Amino acid sequence: MSDLETRIARLEAESDIRRLKARYLNACDAKDLDAIRACFTEDAVIDFPPLGAFDLDGLIGIFTQMAATTPITDVHQGHNAEIEVAGDDASARWNLGYATYDPRAGSFRLLATFYHDRYRRTVGGWRICYTRSEPRAIVDGALAEGGVKAGWVTA
Amino acid sequence: MSDLETRIARLEAESDIRRLKARYLNACDAKDLDAIRACFTEDAVIDFPPLGAFDLDGLIGIFTQMAATTPITDVHQGHNAEIEVAGDDASARWNLGYATYDPRAGSFRLLATFYHDRYRRTVGGWRICYTRSEPRAIVDGALAEGGVKAGWVTA
Amino acid sequence: MSDLETRIARLEAESDIRRLKARYLNACDAKDLDAIRACFTEDAVIDFPPLGAFDLDGLIGIFTQMAATTPITDVHQGHNAEIEVAGDDASARWNLGYATYDPRAGSFRLLATFYHDRYRRTVGGWRICYTRSEPRAIVDGALAEGGVKAGWVTA
Repeated sequence: MSDLETRIARLEAESDIRRLKARYLNACDAKDLDAIRACFTEDAVIDFPPLGAFDLDGLIGIFTQMAATTPITDVHQGHNAEIEVAGDDASARWNLGYATYDPRAGSFRLLATFYHDRYRRTVGGWRICYTRSEPRAIVDGALAEGGVKAGWVTA
Repeated sequence: MSDLETRIARLEAESDIRRLKARYLNACDAKDLDAIRACFTEDAVIDFPPLGAFDLDGLIGIFTQMAATTPITDVHQGHNAEIEVAGDDASARWNLGYATYDPRAGSFRLLATFYHDRYRRTVGGWRICYTRSEPRAIVDGALAEGGVKAGWVTA
Repeated sequence: MSDLETRIARLEAESDIRRLKARYLNACDAKDLDAIRACFTEDAVIDFPPLGAFDLDGLIGIFTQMAATTPITDVHQGHNAEIEVAGDDASARWNLGYATYDPRAGSFRLLATFYHDRYRRTVGGWRICYTRSEPRAIVDGALAEGGVKAGWVTA
């Protein structure tokens, strides 16, 4: 019975971590600063080259400056999760698809990125305590009349 | 023991709901009308702005008209599932990546959308009883000679 | 108790198969040949039209030739998994998003593909014993000055 409980707990941890990462990425798209903050431990370390390395306040600050107070539309989608749980700690590698559209410049950027995360189980549930991005492909472009023959509309 | 069974049942429900949503999205891509219909409860409410709001027959009708009897290729891919299970009911927010290619016009549309779903456990398994899309980014374009310098081929 | 263990084992199998597929796709992006090989049974059958059908050595050979010794950047992201487990065997249908960028030609290719997989539980864990791709949408393009008004940079 004790072994069954250990096995169930590991499956629940993985389920909670998937939900946590999903909540974080959706909150980024929704520009929900409180929801983003709530996904991290207070001592979280965030390393997003070439943007920089941040503590949690720093991440919220950068996000506020680049996204939450601007008309850009971001799309963060997480894939290929390799989650490993060990008690109250866990780690994962993710493959992120990201796109951002800027109506002011009519430009877009597409990224494919590996994410290397570490998680900690707290009294409030699992939280991200470390996350480092490893950019792999960056495509910059413009959506303009006569160019890509594409327009864009934020819904 | 009873508590372990409750915990296992919740994990199974989440697994079944992921499989259900995957089956639905893949069936849309495969233009499999019977498989699409089988993912919903008979009283399902479908709200897909700006397309409209539908009952199940209405959804199948629109899909038949736009996709199942035309040469378009659709790609529906579901991400960032935040699934919450409560007994025989469940809800989820998803982040959908969608692309559609129309060979008749040489055009394409890319969408990033939030989906807000509700599910019900029936005697036949979990089914979608409510789904509402919230479009966030829409990119329209043309794939044409001399323009995007891209062609397309449906396999 | 025995029934609970069977139910837990099925959930663990699905979790392991998701992790296996993620590891495989991420290893393809990372061009990690050893990690790719380790995802398969020795007798695996790989069928990737229009590229061809391969045994495991053949897959590693093709991958070495096309990706591991070239400057291309690949992005493999797996979605919409419909996983069915039956004891020590399993199957799944996936919806794959794939992009490849070739700096030598300034070109890219985007694919949406169904994957039909079979898995076997070995002493070393779950492995892919059969995988067949079914291409559905192929978009070829060029990223060039004056064309798509987009450049690309591998990070």
